[in-house]
Amino acid sequence: MKAVILLSGGLDSSTVLYQAKADGCECYAISFDYQQRHRRELESAAKISRSAGVVQHQVVKFDLTLWGGSALTDNKMELPGDRSLEQMSEKIPITYVPARNTIFLSFALAYAETIGAERVYIGVNALDYSGYPDCRPDYIEAMQSVFRLGTKQGREGEAIAIVAPLLELKKTEIVELGNSLGVSWEDTWSCYAGGEKACGVCDSCRLRVAAFSELGLTDPLPYVS
Amino acid sequence: MKAVILLSGGLDSSTVLYQAKADGCECYAISFDYQQRHRRELESAAKISRSAGVVQHQVVKFDLTLWGGSALTDNKMELPGDRSLEQMSEKIPITYVPARNTIFLSFALAYAETIGAERVYIGVNALDYSGYPDCRPDYIEAMQSVFRLGTKQGREGEAIAIVAPLLELKKTEIVELGNSLGVSWEDTWSCYAGGEKACGVCDSCRLRVAAFSELGLTDPLPYVS
Repeated sequence: MKAVILLSGGLDSSTVLYQAKADGCECYAISFDYQQRHRRELESAAKISRSAGVVQHQVVKFDLTLWGGSALTDNKMELPGDRSLEQMSEKIPITYVPARNTIFLSFALAYAETIGAERVYIGVNALDYSGYPDCRPDYIEAMQSVFRLGTKQGREGEAIAIVAPLLELKKTEIVELGNSLGVSWEDTWSCYAGGEKACGVCDSCRLRVAAFSELGLTDPLPYVS
Repeated sequence: MKAVILLSGGLDSSTVLYQAKADGCECYAISFDYQQRHRRELESAAKISRSAGVVQHQVVKFDLTLWGGSALTDNKMELPGDRSLEQMSEKIPITYVPARNTIFLSFALAYAETIGAERVYIGVNALDYSGYPDCRPDYIEAMQSVFRLGTKQGREGEAIAIVAPLLELKKTEIVELGNSLGVSWEDTWSCYAGGEKACGVCDSCRLRVAAFSELGLTDPLPYVS
């Protein structure tokens, strides 16, 4: 069975790729170069694709800095740093990129239908304090309807299924899952800042560091602090 | 009220842009350079944007030839030509581009949320024989749910509304509507082949020519045949 995996190169999507492999899928990875600050994650996506042995890794390019609207696509906006996990859970953060997962899933759908894949895997997670609207179960259900109604495949046969294995997991559970699947954490990248070393203070670093620490594990990534 | 209008430069989307203007909207047009054969339509989109006096015209570039899957994005596939309107209605044609409207609407949603628009206009039409799955009312409803659930705006306030004024119109009714709104047909482009003159035989040309002819009107575009 063919599957398309949305792969950012981060901890979550890398775990999802290994989950798809464990599910017996022939894996086709797709990543996006949207001029994000942390384009460094694309190198990680390429490394993880190689170590997982994907059939193909597509990188789709477009430019979301055209209109900005997020701290991840507008260099003039400051990244939030040094917030506690509780502060993160309060509201939708400025790292929210309008319609990002909708754009990503749309391209994954196009790719999946073209190659005849039955599944699209995505590493969204509703519990990791991020508050992103496009990471919640009702949103994924709505996209599933789009997959069914908006394609030839969905109209004439069985719709391509969205698989979101991390949806209800805590970050620590994701790290445990990744460990059990053999994900090479040193190849992944989570930091939003995109420097040589991970900053350790952006929301994404904080969540990652907290999870490794809670589990008593060592994160092999180099951190500034 | 701000509105984003999906503008291909064809007859339908140009009419929709003029409809949005007539509805009193401040118009922001968005077009896509996806390496389609008929990229010539982008010149038309620019012309129509100017004549309609839009506030901004964004052209988003990405490459759907990465995986092909359609006669519009794969030069090795032949365009269907010389089919009757009845033949066109039989099945989903090879000019179907997997997930195209889903990709287009996703970018329009991102743009709309960023600029604070209340509406996204799209020129889909369920009756023009095309058979495209992503031009039908139930699909548009599914995307409306995505607009509501997948954005900050939809979660915290009123969702950005998808407006599809041509959904239930026949091609002749669209031409009549465009005429009443003052669309300059000579600036539009419909032909899939993308030559200097319109081919006159591809599905898109056939539908356009038949509509003008049925209404006893002259299409100002130059045709090969």
